[in-house]
Amino acid sequence: MNATTKSATPAKLTKPSDREIRVERIFNASRERVWQAYTDPKLLAQWWGRGNRLDIERYEFEKGGHYRFVEHSDHGTHGFEGRFREVTPMVRISMTFEWDGMPGYPSISTAEFEDLGDGRTRVVSTMLFYTVEERDGILQSGMEGGMNESFAALDALLARSN
Amino acid sequence: MNATTKSATPAKLTKPSDREIRVERIFNASRERVWQAYTDPKLLAQWWGRGNRLDIERYEFEKGGHYRFVEHSDHGTHGFEGRFREVTPMVRISMTFEWDGMPGYPSISTAEFEDLGDGRTRVVSTMLFYTVEERDGILQSGMEGGMNESFAALDALLARSN
Repeated sequence: MNATTKSATPAKLTKPSDREIRVERIFNASRERVWQAYTDPKLLAQWWGRGNRLDIERYEFEKGGHYRFVEHSDHGTHGFEGRFREVTPMVRISMTFEWDGMPGYPSISTAEFEDLGDGRTRVVSTMLFYTVEERDGILQSGMEGGMNESFAALDALLARSN
Repeated sequence: MNATTKSATPAKLTKPSDREIRVERIFNASRERVWQAYTDPKLLAQWWGRGNRLDIERYEFEKGGHYRFVEHSDHGTHGFEGRFREVTPMVRISMTFEWDGMPGYPSISTAEFEDLGDGRTRVVSTMLFYTVEERDGILQSGMEGGMNESFAALDALLARSN
């Protein structure tokens, strides 16, 4: 098993409660580098859109700051936005996350970064919704496939900058 | 009991579930006029801030639109913002609602307007939170008193424009 197949392992998705999704994924890079890829808008734009053009229209990376991403794909243009609830460097980012297609239905998205001590980093992402229906709607929308494509693009970015 | 004491009745606040607050209030005006006071930013600015100056920095009153209010009081400046989830004229407004002091902790605020057929209008407002702790934090913050002050200011506005 080489590094490429290892890093292409799909994320582990679970439902810790009826309004949450939890996603666990390991990346073959140090916590510093994974943190940077998650928080430097220039790097974020290279993987978050899974190969689609991503315009980062707003990115105020601090508690209370707003962000807005616009992804341009063959299937259309999709805006995503929210506000940072917590920014704890190298440890945790928590923010609201809202898709223009369902305005007024934010979720709380939290990513936590764990140094595995062997050059790898575990990222645990949780999403909290107001209702079970909103959570299940997201799961049925193909969110898991899109997320795995984003993570594969992040693998590639981390491999390039090795 | 005259019209003034009638309209000064405090709103009826209940907790329909562990993450919700429900507020019921009757106004001595037609549904058209109450709807207008809730949705015309010039009128909204006259009651929402309970006598404090309210700057309406953004007000895109349609599904997906954003709003931002800034209230200036002797105790400081407070921003509130969100996005409209539903706008059904004369019937229902639903939106996210977030205070700058707790960024990333939106609630879903919904107001429904019922014509009582006797020149009065019942407004039922519900607030939905992610957690019981957020709901109870708002209740402990003095939200009920502030809300009754806003409603009293709305009574006065409706009486003036009779």
